[in-house]
Amino acid sequence: MKSVILLGAGNVATHLYKAFSKAENVLVKQWYNRTRSSISSYANEVEIIDDLNQLKEADLYILAVSDDSIAELSKALPFENRLVAHTSGSVSIHDLDKKNERAVFYPLQTFSKNAELDFSEIPICIEVTEKHNFQFLKDLAEDLGCISYKISTEQRQTLHLSAVFVNNFTNQLYRIAHEISDAKSINFDILKPLIMETTRKVQDMSPYMAQTGPAKRNDKKTIKRQLKQLENEDHKAIYELLTASIKKTHGQR
Amino acid sequence: MKSVILLGAGNVATHLYKAFSKAENVLVKQWYNRTRSSISSYANEVEIIDDLNQLKEADLYILAVSDDSIAELSKALPFENRLVAHTSGSVSIHDLDKKNERAVFYPLQTFSKNAELDFSEIPICIEVTEKHNFQFLKDLAEDLGCISYKISTEQRQTLHLSAVFVNNFTNQLYRIAHEISDAKSINFDILKPLIMETTRKVQDMSPYMAQTGPAKRNDKKTIKRQLKQLENEDHKAIYELLTASIKKTHGQR
Repeated sequence: MKSVILLGAGNVATHLYKAFSKAENVLVKQWYNRTRSSISSYANEVEIIDDLNQLKEADLYILAVSDDSIAELSKALPFENRLVAHTSGSVSIHDLDKKNERAVFYPLQTFSKNAELDFSEIPICIEVTEKHNFQFLKDLAEDLGCISYKISTEQRQTLHLSAVFVNNFTNQLYRIAHEISDAKSINFDILKPLIMETTRKVQDMSPYMAQTGPAKRNDKKTIKRQLKQLENEDHKAIYELLTASIKKTHGQR
Repeated sequence: MKSVILLGAGNVATHLYKAFSKAENVLVKQWYNRTRSSISSYANEVEIIDDLNQLKEADLYILAVSDDSIAELSKALPFENRLVAHTSGSVSIHDLDKKNERAVFYPLQTFSKNAELDFSEIPICIEVTEKHNFQFLKDLAEDLGCISYKISTEQRQTLHLSAVFVNNFTNQLYRIAHEISDAKSINFDILKPLIMETTRKVQDMSPYMAQTGPAKRNDKKTIKRQLKQLENEDHKAIYELLTASIKKTHGQR
């Protein structure tokens, strides 16, 4: 049985808590947050604390707090030579105070408070300063049903950047399509199967192979007409830039 | 039993043929293409023809050909006063020759030759010049298990434009993430669950509500660092433009 103490009360902490408490081989010994109230609803399942001096001994302390708080919180921990991991996509492993054995346990996924999530589909990116801790964290990921990857800080930051493209930027394209279709009284639901299929396709085909459409075909007539259709200058700029990007990728001029 | 004759041999034609031949209430009477060879492998299931003069009588003729060929092919049809539909997202219904009753039967989906597709999840956008044909096409969509929508030419062109954003442009963002992660020897598979979840989220949440990340939070430190991480100027320009777009949508400056 692995014992884990969780620190933080954000989306990642909450999803991790739920996943750990379902796992057979993991015991969440305590859950710390500066303000008890944000997690007090879990008090009948787990010991809730708001004082670092009450922290008990555990195999792993997970700092699932905001990027800016990681260094400070790791410094404030009242113990040494134990295993401490943060869960951030962008913070260096060296931001953790070196009085403890340091690690990163980064679940690459988008976490919303309300959206239920199947944790077993989440890849866990693991980094350690002491090699002997790698297997422990790999096993822990397995206890959650997750696939894990050994990922360096630079690779993790690159993944985090890639995630901005495939998640935040993609979502903004959905938002723009929502605006465009709303303006002509079109139900956004009509686009949802297409959104789904676009994603499904790249699960077993490279995005390069999956590409279709006017930019890839260099269909100048359609591109010109669609640019004319766009009433919003910002949407037009995005259309032009991404069309140019597709043309370049697919060798069009 | 509805009788349908299909014209064209591209991805849409092929997927439509497969869907029709599975439907109980639909008979594909003939399948026409200028060159027999592209569809001759279906000759044991359906009558294949390459001469318009061999066209028999049917309830509906579907021109699933390239946008540029629709007007010419509809003009070349050797009959009058029958129901003729095209399947294009962008061509006006009036591009069809008016000697026949005109319609649009536009399946809003991305079609690849190889990707298997569950046709029942595809929304069909229907437009007609003669009102009495609407119910026939709506029933036909239902025979395929599809939801259909009455959509004007302007709305259809707007949907086609929106589709470029949610499909082609989104796919290009996947491509860029692929390039970025490849450059650091990261397996693109790690990003796939995130890609899937981003899409899943907007199935029951608006893209506006689903947004997260540094641009939405106006996290200047992360934005600056990520811009520095990007080595390709084109990627940088896309990062900047979409970050600005998200900020504007979410009221950040």
